[in-house]
Amino acid sequence: MAGEDVKIDPWGRPEIKDYARLYEVFGIRPISEALAKMRELGVEPSAFMRRGIIFGHRDLDRALEAWKAGEPVAVVTGFMPSGRFHFGHMLTGLQLVFYQRLGFKVFVCLADAEAYAVRHIPRKDAVRIGVEEYVANLLALGLDPSTAEFYFQTSRGLPYHELIQLFSSKVTYNEMEAIYGELTPGKIVSALTQVADILHPMLPEYGGHRYVVVPVGADQDPHIRLARDVASRMASEVEYFTPPAATYHKLIRGLDGGKMSSSRPEFTIFLTDPVGDAIRKLRASVTGGRNTAEEQRRLGGEPDKCPVFDQYAYYLVPDDSELESIERRCKSGALLCGECKAFGSERLKSFLETHQRSLEAYKDKAWSIVEAPKY
Amino acid sequence: MAGEDVKIDPWGRPEIKDYARLYEVFGIRPISEALAKMRELGVEPSAFMRRGIIFGHRDLDRALEAWKAGEPVAVVTGFMPSGRFHFGHMLTGLQLVFYQRLGFKVFVCLADAEAYAVRHIPRKDAVRIGVEEYVANLLALGLDPSTAEFYFQTSRGLPYHELIQLFSSKVTYNEMEAIYGELTPGKIVSALTQVADILHPMLPEYGGHRYVVVPVGADQDPHIRLARDVASRMASEVEYFTPPAATYHKLIRGLDGGKMSSSRPEFTIFLTDPVGDAIRKLRASVTGGRNTAEEQRRLGGEPDKCPVFDQYAYYLVPDDSELESIERRCKSGALLCGECKAFGSERLKSFLETHQRSLEAYKDKAWSIVEAPKY
Repeated sequence: MAGEDVKIDPWGRPEIKDYARLYEVFGIRPISEALAKMRELGVEPSAFMRRGIIFGHRDLDRALEAWKAGEPVAVVTGFMPSGRFHFGHMLTGLQLVFYQRLGFKVFVCLADAEAYAVRHIPRKDAVRIGVEEYVANLLALGLDPSTAEFYFQTSRGLPYHELIQLFSSKVTYNEMEAIYGELTPGKIVSALTQVADILHPMLPEYGGHRYVVVPVGADQDPHIRLARDVASRMASEVEYFTPPAATYHKLIRGLDGGKMSSSRPEFTIFLTDPVGDAIRKLRASVTGGRNTAEEQRRLGGEPDKCPVFDQYAYYLVPDDSELESIERRCKSGALLCGECKAFGSERLKSFLETHQRSLEAYKDKAWSIVEAPKY
Repeated sequence: MAGEDVKIDPWGRPEIKDYARLYEVFGIRPISEALAKMRELGVEPSAFMRRGIIFGHRDLDRALEAWKAGEPVAVVTGFMPSGRFHFGHMLTGLQLVFYQRLGFKVFVCLADAEAYAVRHIPRKDAVRIGVEEYVANLLALGLDPSTAEFYFQTSRGLPYHELIQLFSSKVTYNEMEAIYGELTPGKIVSALTQVADILHPMLPEYGGHRYVVVPVGADQDPHIRLARDVASRMASEVEYFTPPAATYHKLIRGLDGGKMSSSRPEFTIFLTDPVGDAIRKLRASVTGGRNTAEEQRRLGGEPDKCPVFDQYAYYLVPDDSELESIERRCKSGALLCGECKAFGSERLKSFLETHQRSLEAYKDKAWSIVEAPKY
C-alpha cells in the first residue's frame, strides 16, 4: 500500500493501533531521539516522555534549541468546550505546565466556533464550560495565568481571523484531500481555523513566538501536517512563520478499555467527579486481570491491557520506581486486582480531593483572565 | 443541455451574452414583473430598471412587500478595495441610494480579506483605498451615512465571523461544486465569507433586517444562490434568516467595448479622473458608428453596440425622453459620432466637476464613519 493512501481522520478519532506505521508513513520521529537532545540541553524529560506515553515528535529538538538560544517559544493547544474536563484532557494540561516551567508562553484555544459548528453547542454554554471547566481546571493543575493566554476562537480578534482567509489561498483542494480524505466545506473551514490556532502565536500581534510546539494525540496529526505545509509556504512571504513542532501521545483508555470521553461518563474520570463516584467507576473498571484469582496468581496480570494501570502510568503514580514495582507485582501474580483497585482508589481520592480544593479557588480567577466573547 | 451543467464563475467574471438563459436555467425572474409590483406599491422604479439595465430579480417583490409592511429591510453590497472607484462601481452605488431613500438600511462591505487573499493587497492599502475611494465616492453620490454602515470584513466583529464557521456546516461540497464549478479552499472560504456578508444584517446584533436585497451583476449570482440555500437551511433553526432578494444588472461596457475595470484604465472612467483625462478617453472610445460619415448618414449608427451610448444610458442622460431622442437621431443617421462625443464630453465634464467638488468634502467624513480595522 502506498503511503499516500493512508489517512488519519482527526474528526473521527479512530483508534490508532500501529504506531510504528506513523513513523514510516508520516515521518513522525520516535521520542527517544528527542530525549537524548533534551538531556544534552539540560532538560529533564517529563514522565509522559520517559514512559513512552508521548511516543513521537516532529522538530521538538529544533524548538528546544530555539528555546535554549533564547528565542521566543510557545506551546499551543486547543480544547472543544463541549463537556466536562476529564483525565483525557489532563494529559495535555500537564504538558502545558511542563513547557511553561521551561519558559514557553502558553496559548490555550477554546474552540467555541467548532463546538457550535460540529456539536451545535450554543455560544453561552460553550463560554461557561470553557471558563469553568477548562480554564479553571488548567489553573488548578498548575498553569500560571501570567504567561498563559486563554481565548475563544470567535473572540480572538482580527489578525487571527484574517489568517483563516489568508491560509485558504495557500493550499489546494487536492492537498487537503490527501491529508484529510473526503472533505466538506465544514471540514475545510475547521481545518483552516485550527491552522490559525496553531500558527497565530507567530504573528507579531500575538508576541512573535516563531517556535511553537503542539502536543497532540496521533489522530490530530493531519492538522499538524497542514499547519506545517502552510507555514512553509508563508515563510517565503513573511519571515516569522516557521513549521510548528509537535509531540504525539497515546490517548488514555476509558475504564472499559474503550475511549475516554465525556460522552461516555461511566468509563471516564472527570476532575470534578464527586470522589465517591470516581472511586465507584474505578472499582467497576475492566482490568488486565485473569478470570480467577487462582489463574492470576499462576499466570500474572497484564498491565499493558489494564485501564486501571493506565491511570497509574499517566497520573496516579508519578514515581517511576513505584510504578515499576506495581507492574512487576502484577505480572508476577503477587498483586491481585482487588488489592490494586483499593490502592488506586486511595490515590484517586487523594488526587481529586487536592485538586478540587484548589479548583474552587480558581473558578472566579478563570473568569477574570479569559478573553471571552463580549456578547 | 441539462440546466445543472451550466455554471457561472463569479471569480472569472465571464461575459454573459445570453440573459434569457439565466431566466430559464437559474430561475431569475424578468424585472418587468417586479416593476408592476413596485407601481402597485407606489414606488417609482429607478432609471436602471426602466431601461432594462437591471434586467432580472429574485424575490424583489417579496422584499418590497416587507418594506411596505414596515418590516426592517436592508440593501447589501460589497466592493473589493483594490483599485479606484469607476463608472462600473457607480451602478451599484446609485442603487444603494435608491433603496436608502425608500427607507432601506444600507450595508457596504469593503472586502479587505478577499483583496488580500485574491490580489495580495496589503491591509493598509486596502483600508486607505476602501475609505478614500469607495466610501468617499459613495457619500458624494448621495449615500446618507446616518442609515448606512461601512465595514471591512476583517473588522466586522465576531457574530459575523462566527457565521462563516456556522455556514460551513450547512452546505456540502457537492452543492458548492454544483454552484461554482471547480473549488479550491480559497474559493470555499471566500464564498462563505460573501454569504456572511449578505446574511449578517439579519442577525439581531446587526439590526435584525430580515429582508435583504442584493444588487449584483449576473456573474455574481452563484453567491446569491448559495446565500439563499444557506438561509433556507438556517431558517429552520433561527427564525430571522430569510432567503435574500437580489436584482441583476448588465455591466457597463468599457470604452473599447470590453470590460470596464481598474486594470484597464484607458477604457475606464474613474470618478476621480481629471476632467481632461476622462474626456480624452471618451473621445477615443469606439462607438456604434459606421466606417464613414457618408455611410453613417445612410445606414444610421448602432447605439446598442456603442460604449459611449452606454455611458448615457447608465448615467449621463437621466432624462428618458432625451435619451430616446439621442437614440433616434443616432439610428436615423442624423447624429454623427463627433457631435455626439462633443455632447457626451460636456455631460461628462459637468458630472465629474460636480461630483469631485463634493468628493473633497467627503474624504475626511469617510474616515470618521467607517468601521476600520484597528491595527
